Amino acid sequence: MSSMLNLSLYVITGNRRWKHEEVAEAALKAGVEIIQYREKEAPAKIMVEEARRIRKLCDEYDSTLIVNDRVDVAIACNADGVHVGQEDMPVEIVAEIFDGIIGVSVKTVEQAKRAERHADYFGAGSVFPTGTKETEVIGLEGVKRIVEATSVPVVAIGGINRENVLEVLETGVAGVAVVSAVAMADDPEKAARELLDLIENLEKEKVREPL
Amino acid sequence: MSSMLNLSLYVITGNRRWKHEEVAEAALKAGVEIIQYREKEAPAKIMVEEARRIRKLCDEYDSTLIVNDRVDVAIACNADGVHVGQEDMPVEIVAEIFDGIIGVSVKTVEQAKRAERHADYFGAGSVFPTGTKETEVIGLEGVKRIVEATSVPVVAIGGINRENVLEVLETGVAGVAVVSAVAMADDPEKAARELLDLIENLEKEKVREPL
Repeated sequence: MSSMLNLSLYVITGNRRWKHEEVAEAALKAGVEIIQYREKEAPAKIMVEEARRIRKLCDEYDSTLIVNDRVDVAIACNADGVHVGQEDMPVEIVAEIFDGIIGVSVKTVEQAKRAERHADYFGAGSVFPTGTKETEVIGLEGVKRIVEATSVPVVAIGGINRENVLEVLETGVAGVAVVSAVAMADDPEKAARELLDLIENLEKEKVREPL
Repeated sequence: MSSMLNLSLYVITGNRRWKHEEVAEAALKAGVEIIQYREKEAPAKIMVEEARRIRKLCDEYDSTLIVNDRVDVAIACNADGVHVGQEDMPVEIVAEIFDGIIGVSVKTVEQAKRAERHADYFGAGSVFPTGTKETEVIGLEGVKRIVEATSVPVVAIGGINRENVLEVLETGVAGVAVVSAVAMADDPEKAARELLDLIENLEKEKVREPL
């Protein structure tokens, strides 16, 4: 794990088009420093195998591994963190049984305030409509409200791509999380690199801005 | 948890007809000393809530609680044990991350030998055809082969009811596990009590047998 949590581009694996490992490796090669392994269907045996292979890849690239939902799989693969949604294990219980980074999906300021004590970051969204699991769209305004209400770093999620990533970053989020934009791309490494370039250029511009 | 593991009648909850808690409470009232919470569909949040309620019930009756598959839920509800199938988290990994009773589903002597080092008991089956998850039938002979091949206590599972429970016990198993026979009964408490009576009468008869 990197000594400091870099949430700027947070890549979530999906097994629709590419294998989880393929998405993870492509993202890591591109320079992504945080990967979330998200698998909802496979038996735990498969999850542990896949998560352990991605653990090794993240180690090679000195990057952070987060496991979605399954705290036991996170423990079994020695993940740096676990990410839970509102229907997953409650964050206060996760904090009792898991020693590591805890991410929490939130849609509202209220959900964020409730989880604030135990969360190391929030995933806020969906920012935009999306084909993957998130459905309720909270928009840029919804994300901004959460960012302004909490001191916990916020990662925006949901329908983020090259076209809209810069306006998302203007909400003040610590980073953006993507599923389809990388995991469904013809070339996941290229897609991740392009997103990273956009984000890094924006950060450089900010540095050049007069105070 | 009871000081000694009593596997004689092992009741697995199901939420088809009755709620998990209802099945557990009925079985405990009847005198069952080991309950397995098995839930495959619900979100983890619901699982933890249900498992914690059953934990309280098992405490009241000084009985053992086992959670199926989800090691994280087992930890979160302070279960005495976890039960894993061949597609769940591998038993050697469960043993690394979980401190408690470990049960393993086996269909063959080979599977039993492989898991023997870490398993506190085996669930062997299906003995008979069944409507619930188990499909491949190994028969009384299959159960007997496993019992004879290992020193780990074996619980037979799959299609066991009042009519066949005594012939199952003749294979030398430590007990029988039931899903439908209790969880699908009109009166789960009565069904559990009748099974327990049959098992206890057999044990008494054994004591009366000349050496």
